[in-house]
Amino acid sequence: MMDVALFGAGRIGKIHAGNVAREPGVRLRYVIDVDGAAASALAAQHGAQVATAEAALADNAVRAVVIGSSTDTHADLITRAAAAGKAIFCEKPVDLDVGRARECAEAVKRAGVVCMIGFQRRFDPTFAALKERLVAGEIGDPEMLVVTSRDPGAPPVEYLKRSGGIFRDMLIHDFDVFRWILDDDAATVYATGSVLTDPAVGTVGDVDSTAVTIHTRRGRLAQINTSRRAAYGYDQRFEVLGSRGMLQAGNHKPTEVVAATAASVSQDKPEHFFLERYRAAYAAEMAHFFAALAAGTPVRTSICDGVKALELADAATTSWREKRIVELG
Amino acid sequence: MMDVALFGAGRIGKIHAGNVAREPGVRLRYVIDVDGAAASALAAQHGAQVATAEAALADNAVRAVVIGSSTDTHADLITRAAAAGKAIFCEKPVDLDVGRARECAEAVKRAGVVCMIGFQRRFDPTFAALKERLVAGEIGDPEMLVVTSRDPGAPPVEYLKRSGGIFRDMLIHDFDVFRWILDDDAATVYATGSVLTDPAVGTVGDVDSTAVTIHTRRGRLAQINTSRRAAYGYDQRFEVLGSRGMLQAGNHKPTEVVAATAASVSQDKPEHFFLERYRAAYAAEMAHFFAALAAGTPVRTSICDGVKALELADAATTSWREKRIVELG
Amino acid sequence: MMDVALFGAGRIGKIHAGNVAREPGVRLRYVIDVDGAAASALAAQHGAQVATAEAALADNAVRAVVIGSSTDTHADLITRAAAAGKAIFCEKPVDLDVGRARECAEAVKRAGVVCMIGFQRRFDPTFAALKERLVAGEIGDPEMLVVTSRDPGAPPVEYLKRSGGIFRDMLIHDFDVFRWILDDDAATVYATGSVLTDPAVGTVGDVDSTAVTIHTRRGRLAQINTSRRAAYGYDQRFEVLGSRGMLQAGNHKPTEVVAATAASVSQDKPEHFFLERYRAAYAAEMAHFFAALAAGTPVRTSICDGVKALELADAATTSWREKRIVELG
Amino acid sequence: MMDVALFGAGRIGKIHAGNVAREPGVRLRYVIDVDGAAASALAAQHGAQVATAEAALADNAVRAVVIGSSTDTHADLITRAAAAGKAIFCEKPVDLDVGRARECAEAVKRAGVVCMIGFQRRFDPTFAALKERLVAGEIGDPEMLVVTSRDPGAPPVEYLKRSGGIFRDMLIHDFDVFRWILDDDAATVYATGSVLTDPAVGTVGDVDSTAVTIHTRRGRLAQINTSRRAAYGYDQRFEVLGSRGMLQAGNHKPTEVVAATAASVSQDKPEHFFLERYRAAYAAEMAHFFAALAAGTPVRTSICDGVKALELADAATTSWREKRIVELG
Repeated sequence: MMDVALFGAGRIGKIHAGNVAREPGVRLRYVIDVDGAAASALAAQHGAQVATAEAALADNAVRAVVIGSSTDTHADLITRAAAAGKAIFCEKPVDLDVGRARECAEAVKRAGVVCMIGFQRRFDPTFAALKERLVAGEIGDPEMLVVTSRDPGAPPVEYLKRSGGIFRDMLIHDFDVFRWILDDDAATVYATGSVLTDPAVGTVGDVDSTAVTIHTRRGRLAQINTSRRAAYGYDQRFEVLGSRGMLQAGNHKPTEVVAATAASVSQDKPEHFFLERYRAAYAAEMAHFFAALAAGTPVRTSICDGVKALELADAATTSWREKRIVELG
Repeated sequence: MMDVALFGAGRIGKIHAGNVAREPGVRLRYVIDVDGAAASALAAQHGAQVATAEAALADNAVRAVVIGSSTDTHADLITRAAAAGKAIFCEKPVDLDVGRARECAEAVKRAGVVCMIGFQRRFDPTFAALKERLVAGEIGDPEMLVVTSRDPGAPPVEYLKRSGGIFRDMLIHDFDVFRWILDDDAATVYATGSVLTDPAVGTVGDVDSTAVTIHTRRGRLAQINTSRRAAYGYDQRFEVLGSRGMLQAGNHKPTEVVAATAASVSQDKPEHFFLERYRAAYAAEMAHFFAALAAGTPVRTSICDGVKALELADAATTSWREKRIVELG
Repeated sequence: MMDVALFGAGRIGKIHAGNVAREPGVRLRYVIDVDGAAASALAAQHGAQVATAEAALADNAVRAVVIGSSTDTHADLITRAAAAGKAIFCEKPVDLDVGRARECAEAVKRAGVVCMIGFQRRFDPTFAALKERLVAGEIGDPEMLVVTSRDPGAPPVEYLKRSGGIFRDMLIHDFDVFRWILDDDAATVYATGSVLTDPAVGTVGDVDSTAVTIHTRRGRLAQINTSRRAAYGYDQRFEVLGSRGMLQAGNHKPTEVVAATAASVSQDKPEHFFLERYRAAYAAEMAHFFAALAAGTPVRTSICDGVKALELADAATTSWREKRIVELG
Repeated sequence: MMDVALFGAGRIGKIHAGNVAREPGVRLRYVIDVDGAAASALAAQHGAQVATAEAALADNAVRAVVIGSSTDTHADLITRAAAAGKAIFCEKPVDLDVGRARECAEAVKRAGVVCMIGFQRRFDPTFAALKERLVAGEIGDPEMLVVTSRDPGAPPVEYLKRSGGIFRDMLIHDFDVFRWILDDDAATVYATGSVLTDPAVGTVGDVDSTAVTIHTRRGRLAQINTSRRAAYGYDQRFEVLGSRGMLQAGNHKPTEVVAATAASVSQDKPEHFFLERYRAAYAAEMAHFFAALAAGTPVRTSICDGVKALELADAATTSWREKRIVELG
């Protein structure tokens, strides 16, 4: 039985707790959260205990930690957990500062521990099937990637202030999808953005709508379009054009009901937001983490992927702010 | 904590065991199966014990039974469980003989216990959403129902011999869907059938393809078409025409990948068979069973629904065999 | 240059006039209609002349006639045109009385003239492509056909009185589709119907909703469901299940716009009614008629097809009226 | 009766000839082409005469000209036709040189004649319906536009040499779509490109794959992705995200057949190329041209639109060549 400590009892913490609990041979032992009531409730639900970070990391029975606490705690917890020899699963981003993220990666490397970053989209059934078919050569060589990534609504401005900006907060997932799908790196990044949904977004120095173009080292082209607001829900699509065809990943819908009336022929809107759309993905990534630990095989989304995605987010932020094309090493 | 005894450790028994195990406040206590090894394996997986029917039914801590054993055991187990005062969840059909099924329903009534029949389709997210929207009046009064129900491949002939024939074995689900969706009863039934997939089906006095028409008491029309073989997988669709529009329930697909190549634009085939397609439905029906027990509210698919569906299957069988329209009381 | 006389300057006559006018090497010479003003207007539009039936049939330059006048004139005009040695294109049905229709077929045969019946659905791009792929063996042997055929709204009761009933008026097209797609004949027909859209339909001894089942000589099954009213427009679909898959013919839409809003994700309703949906089919059938005349090859929808469809309509009417299964020779 | 002279008897000339011939009150009088045989054949087909440009422009009966000859003749013919007081319909582009294009626009203005540029996409049923619904406010204010524009295969390298490059040859349509749909102008343009389909494209100084981003004056964002090769055919889609939803324009398909087999569930590929996809649009734009002439109302795609699209193509070419963001006045 592998004991696990979970940091963070909020929205994503609850998801992870449920998925950890369902893993055979794994036990959720500790829940750690600055909000004691939240920690207690979640711990009680899964037969775990509330603990401090110190205590949890000091317990030798704890072989792995799941970090779902706020972004500003990630780097510190990764570093400490690595030092304590724990296997680490951490929500993205590693840190908002790429320097600190690199230090974390170094710490993980030195400690020789496993550190998986929660880029759950790679585990989405549709996205993963597309990737598999791409790798199998179904559409030949990939040439172009178009990513559409839109949230149903913007978070509160208070959140935005501490978010690191839309490129680090929201597009970091899309940058990881780009790297994963094309198996390529950016040569140049161009990003532009606009405040279109709420002027308040602009007052905190951020944008809510972006258009990013990446020219890769192998000469491929990728375009990402994002918005903080899609009236019809969470829009998560991408398509890859290859030399022999195209693969498209469409949205998931709650049901397959079609209604034909005098007004129109309609179907369900996409799954509302990430908790619904990526429910299967969150379960699959956690299963992958523990399966990789058990088998001693590498995790599919390492801390290096976390650092690389952050480098792209930084480059995009610079491109947008300085209105110029940014070249990457 | 409510203790549960599960009869049957086969394919469907495993599904039910997993769903029972996930219910909060419910514990899988006993697994009963003529195949001792299967019972042991399933019991071990969920921390339950292997038992005899007698022992399980004699244990007062057991408040509910789940019957997923072979069809010929249903009536006996329902009767005994009812006599023992247990709440009952039983897979369809109640029995292949409508007389025995009615006796079971009587026994359940006398005992005053809850008895839910596993018509899981009513709990399918797509089907249930369609029903809800129909009841909400989205398409006015329902007038016509068209049901398409096709299996990916026929079961072995040995199975067919004991199945009661295609109308009782396969269409019983469609007859229940008909009653549920139209909230109406059959005035006349016409059924015809053919052996088109494998001559062996005919040698055991059955057919593999059927076309059924029901004229309801309120003058509505329903058509059901079924086949034991659809090369593209499990095809489970229906549509309702109403005075103000149509609602269609489409197939579920494993992923939302679309591939465009020189050959065609293609998407996934439907979920392969019932275990995949109705995975969510099996979980939802079990959750409903225990929620109804906890709340003391009626179950949505009672033993009476089981009897009524069987009466339709009998009428269809007669119509097909005797080549005539059958009137129902 | 082949001169053509057109009988009927109404809705369908106008369609045929336009299509005749577009045929190279063909000239619309005469328009004949009891409504003189309608005839004049249509003739003027295409540089033709108004004439009487006698004059048009007596003109040796007229090599072909197109009959789009009211149903009760068809048999007489076919007989006279055949006697005059003209090639004939006639709208369905040949006649409401199968005896008269057979006499017409005899007259055509004796005269040795071409007589094509306007079963335009066989020329619809979607239906024709499906048939071609079926014949090419894409889904193996056909086993089952499901036809959905719904009008956007019922015609006036005055029309219904003289229509011959829904099976002869509306389903005759579906019966022809059945024969064409399965390339098979009916062994038995069962039909039932109901008055669900407007009680006035019942007062003239007709129904507005029907469910028909055909068991073919080769043991295949076909189901047809029809309604005089679909709130969402003209619904013209069918699907064929074969031993190796299924082919479905879907509705045509005016545009490929998809709208995603807070309410739903919607697309266009089907083309509104037959003039829109079968616009391409009407052009293609007329092109086929003149191409067959030019090449001396048989037409694809002969007067025999017209008679056979009528026989099915008669059988269905009898089945519905007498509440019994009807066997066909 | 309005007489028309057609310049160009090639692929697009034939399309225009057919559409001119179908216009009531319009007569195709002259066909002019350097290839005499082609001119003769096309003239004969429509009862027109072969002529020289001089003769055609000198004939006062000729009230309008349709220019479908090679790009390098457009500016000269527009200028001469304007001087001769003819109404002008000219294929895109006005000229490959924006200076000459502006001179043409000046000449048209001075002459006070109508000059419509053949941006047929604005007349496509799907695109036009989307625009109409956008203007009607169905999705609120437009914020983002994503255009996908891919050809089924690259033209010969000989063609590419004289084409002006992909941005002027291919994307000029997309730039016009951008201006039309967003009703906005570009503030900055960023374009990048790559040679991915055939190295020969690179040898003539062109690219075959491009990614363009436009930031508009009103702060909206547009992304265009194009390729000279899509294995699955002509891909012509765009989508507009607005404050209250999204409108998508999808591809047109030849038929609505769906095939479900053991391999997949598939539908038709998109219409193969522009002649098929935009057949209705070519007819509609010509009808619009003559309707506008008859009514004295402005044409929807003026020579100014031609100049503006060319300015965007120039800016994109510069951005790609000089690897920089280009600001527009």
